[in-house]
Amino acid sequence: MTIQVFGHKSPDTDSTGSPIIWAWYLSEIKGTPAEAVLLGEPNTEAKFMLDHWGLTMPRVLGKLESGAPVVIVDTNNPAELPDNINEADIRGIIDHHKLVGGLETKGPIDIRIEPLACTATIMWKMIGDDLAQAPKSIKGAMLTCILSDTLEFRSPTTTQEDKAIAHGLAKDLGVDIESYAAEMFAAKSDVSAFSDAELLRMDSKEYTVDGKEFRVSVLETTAPQTVLDRKDSLMKSMEDVAKEDGADQVLLFVVDILKEEATLLVPNDMVKGVAEKSFGAVVEGDIVVLPGVMSRKKQIIPNLKV
Amino acid sequence: MTIQVFGHKSPDTDSTGSPIIWAWYLSEIKGTPAEAVLLGEPNTEAKFMLDHWGLTMPRVLGKLESGAPVVIVDTNNPAELPDNINEADIRGIIDHHKLVGGLETKGPIDIRIEPLACTATIMWKMIGDDLAQAPKSIKGAMLTCILSDTLEFRSPTTTQEDKAIAHGLAKDLGVDIESYAAEMFAAKSDVSAFSDAELLRMDSKEYTVDGKEFRVSVLETTAPQTVLDRKDSLMKSMEDVAKEDGADQVLLFVVDILKEEATLLVPNDMVKGVAEKSFGAVVEGDIVVLPGVMSRKKQIIPNLKV
Repeated sequence: MTIQVFGHKSPDTDSTGSPIIWAWYLSEIKGTPAEAVLLGEPNTEAKFMLDHWGLTMPRVLGKLESGAPVVIVDTNNPAELPDNINEADIRGIIDHHKLVGGLETKGPIDIRIEPLACTATIMWKMIGDDLAQAPKSIKGAMLTCILSDTLEFRSPTTTQEDKAIAHGLAKDLGVDIESYAAEMFAAKSDVSAFSDAELLRMDSKEYTVDGKEFRVSVLETTAPQTVLDRKDSLMKSMEDVAKEDGADQVLLFVVDILKEEATLLVPNDMVKGVAEKSFGAVVEGDIVVLPGVMSRKKQIIPNLKV
Repeated sequence: MTIQVFGHKSPDTDSTGSPIIWAWYLSEIKGTPAEAVLLGEPNTEAKFMLDHWGLTMPRVLGKLESGAPVVIVDTNNPAELPDNINEADIRGIIDHHKLVGGLETKGPIDIRIEPLACTATIMWKMIGDDLAQAPKSIKGAMLTCILSDTLEFRSPTTTQEDKAIAHGLAKDLGVDIESYAAEMFAAKSDVSAFSDAELLRMDSKEYTVDGKEFRVSVLETTAPQTVLDRKDSLMKSMEDVAKEDGADQVLLFVVDILKEEATLLVPNDMVKGVAEKSFGAVVEGDIVVLPGVMSRKKQIIPNLKV
């Protein structure tokens, strides 16, 4: 039976590219038939990656069959996976996020989690010398994932390993990192086609802080103004999205990749309090700039206070 | 702050040896001060390993301090760890059991779980060429852990990797596997000093099957008769142990390492039903022999039915 390899429900570049990389490795090197699938529509940067490297867009998984063999990548959080994930035959987990708890397996399986910036970096280490047999498109996906998750090495999640591996891949592929990353980020920044609700849910994770449920959304962009121009309708949409998703509040951080700062939208006094207590910010008006803040994992979540 | 490395609450050979191996690796190779500790008294085979290789018995951990840096080996099950494990600063997990769910970490950490017979086998792979710097005692602990968890390659959990690595270590150390394993198993079989309740809890894990709580105990021995001679008082003691530990029933499997079979004690009709439904056994009297059954993980738990 073909193994389905997938990432989380809001497929960004790493959650689109890493399943493709791993399905290639399983199928072509390990001789185990495997297919990359998606749990949602990939974002614009992920689509750019697919186009640029001539990769076929994986199909979006419908219902996950009970007992189906799967490998989970780029998450270990049941909330970001199909509802019936624990009924699947989970064969492996490759991830770089904190252990959340909740996934269960029927027997011992291969699990590899490392505190690196990107799932693809861990895969590079696991694949080892066999990567020499990979087509350019697989190496290109790897490079794109690492540049995406590290924001071209600007994110504080970046490790020396991520950086060294990306540089090695770029050299091998003859890619100029600076201009390629600029193309990637331009693709990611083109969010004109998305509704406000879609923008709020695009790169979004739920967290409970002091009993409050937050949907913490991040938009990484090189053109923050195009998002901030929509702030009034985005703030209005937050109420509906929070209600529909059973959250108390949506927090939207617009991350300016080039200026290395985040702008938090402040629709009400509760978010104002969050900005002040979490980041020591002085809030005047309905937005606040948080200098140096780029990473939800390293800088936003660990500091969040109500 | 020194990292405490520990396995589960009923330290067998792997849960005693693997913390010692990893603490050596962290301290001597990675330059991170680390100490092996135990969560209980090691069993007689583990003590034999310490004596034979001149290893210092790790201290038994008292209270786990909140925020203390720890590495967990040979389990990922909170029930087999200190109650406040999720308040510790978990730095890593190395294990070969199924993912149970329940452990949570504050950030991304190093987690490595593989479907191999023994934690020490995974460590051998992770340590790589640095093992050349290990003293004989560390290599000896590794070999002992693998021979113990594989029952000298007889257990169906044994993989080609476990076997090849053990043979490599034995050659390097000049150890004759057959005679060394016989010494190990003789040490493990010497259970005369333990009370019935201690025997029932020595290598025991709790599982819920169809709403019933079982304490599934395994005694691996080359001298099954010495245990079976005590069967009447063992069956009597089961009632008290079950009551004290909040279980519905204790199941005791006496595994004959050399004959490669298990004898299940059958104190009542419920266990008789379990033996019949789980293993297709025909039960007459208060014991039943299960040919070929050696592994709780691979053969007992997956088949357990009420």
